[in-house]
Amino acid sequence: MPDAENQTELPTDEAMHAMRVLRLKSGDELFLMDGVGNYFRAQVTVAATHHCYYEILEKLPQEPQWKGHLHLGIAPTKMMDRMEWMMEKATEVGIDEVSFLNCKFSERRLVKLVRLDKIVTAAVKQSHKAWKPQVNEMVHFNHFLEQPIQGRKYIAHCYEEVPRVELFDELRKPSDSQDATVLVGPEGDFSIDEVKAAVAAGWVSVSLGSARLRTETAGLAAVMMMQLAQK
Amino acid sequence: MPDAENQTELPTDEAMHAMRVLRLKSGDELFLMDGVGNYFRAQVTVAATHHCYYEILEKLPQEPQWKGHLHLGIAPTKMMDRMEWMMEKATEVGIDEVSFLNCKFSERRLVKLVRLDKIVTAAVKQSHKAWKPQVNEMVHFNHFLEQPIQGRKYIAHCYEEVPRVELFDELRKPSDSQDATVLVGPEGDFSIDEVKAAVAAGWVSVSLGSARLRTETAGLAAVMMMQLAQK
Repeated sequence: MPDAENQTELPTDEAMHAMRVLRLKSGDELFLMDGVGNYFRAQVTVAATHHCYYEILEKLPQEPQWKGHLHLGIAPTKMMDRMEWMMEKATEVGIDEVSFLNCKFSERRLVKLVRLDKIVTAAVKQSHKAWKPQVNEMVHFNHFLEQPIQGRKYIAHCYEEVPRVELFDELRKPSDSQDATVLVGPEGDFSIDEVKAAVAAGWVSVSLGSARLRTETAGLAAVMMMQLAQK
Repeated sequence: MPDAENQTELPTDEAMHAMRVLRLKSGDELFLMDGVGNYFRAQVTVAATHHCYYEILEKLPQEPQWKGHLHLGIAPTKMMDRMEWMMEKATEVGIDEVSFLNCKFSERRLVKLVRLDKIVTAAVKQSHKAWKPQVNEMVHFNHFLEQPIQGRKYIAHCYEEVPRVELFDELRKPSDSQDATVLVGPEGDFSIDEVKAAVAAGWVSVSLGSARLRTETAGLAAVMMMQLAQK
């Protein structure tokens, strides 16, 4: 839960879970995470029907599990369940930030972050992550390119007429920055103008390998490659 | 479709798809795959309501997209939808064989291969694979260990008391064999006796990295590591 350190009461849904499922009572210990690098050992002070108060006993700062800031920019798929599982899996594997891109050939131009946030939060807990990925509102592709982004920047696409290098090989090269951002296009790929605009803006044109991957598989493959290259 | 070369009629469901969705008529061209390395350029000879006959015009043998035979052994998850998406994604990324393991802590001891076969077939078509993965009936873990398996053999688990090396590092080492098999346990992991039995039988004890992964995510991570190491 955000700002767990400075709160004294669990959010209602967490309180219900703590009491109905975990059956915590006054005096019981529980662990909290703030999603920004800390676990807390805490003790239940008051457990009422819809309220659960606690006090922090110990702050347990965690070590990052990987180096650098890993960022995935992806055009969401038409079928939202495919994005949902990708978000769950990317969170488990490990990602710092996800941005949704509104591209020329996008089949979905709206994402509901509230539902995705629940999925990401559940995956953070399930996989014991101390950091929760930041998930950004959808932005227009051209607008995304104008944002200042630190570190290495890659755009994955399938156009044979634009020279591509292998993402995984690039990620493993020594670099001044551990930070990396990879962009993955919609079902119909980026438009070639989008790819050219990105290359002109300093993004490296990459391939994710010879397999023909769905958008959500490509997104997860990019996350796994970033993780394997950054260990 | 299996044995496409020696048949002259599409299976009923493919015939329905060819005529109702693709609206193929007599004389139209179509592409067939046999799932064992060949595409075929063919021509519709007769298109009736539930029947579609064809003749092969050209056999187009394909090059393998990766080296060696890649095999995943996995204990299926309690929720079958999680196995289904893993099978879809593993097929897209690239796998030759999947075996389901019945382990001590398995939460599922039965898999219906008919439904998985449909998912795998759809993923083979969608990702334009010339080879279809072989999916085996569930076997007891101990029985699986008794089977003769070629190449490098790894068992992934979470027991800190059994020394583990990193799977990806191992896969990247030079080896006499390109073939690799990785075993992934159920939600509750393999039992320590199962791990020890595998190690005694020559399997290398490995870790998939520091992230705590669900069974289906671990399975897909293993497939992606095999692919990245085998390119």
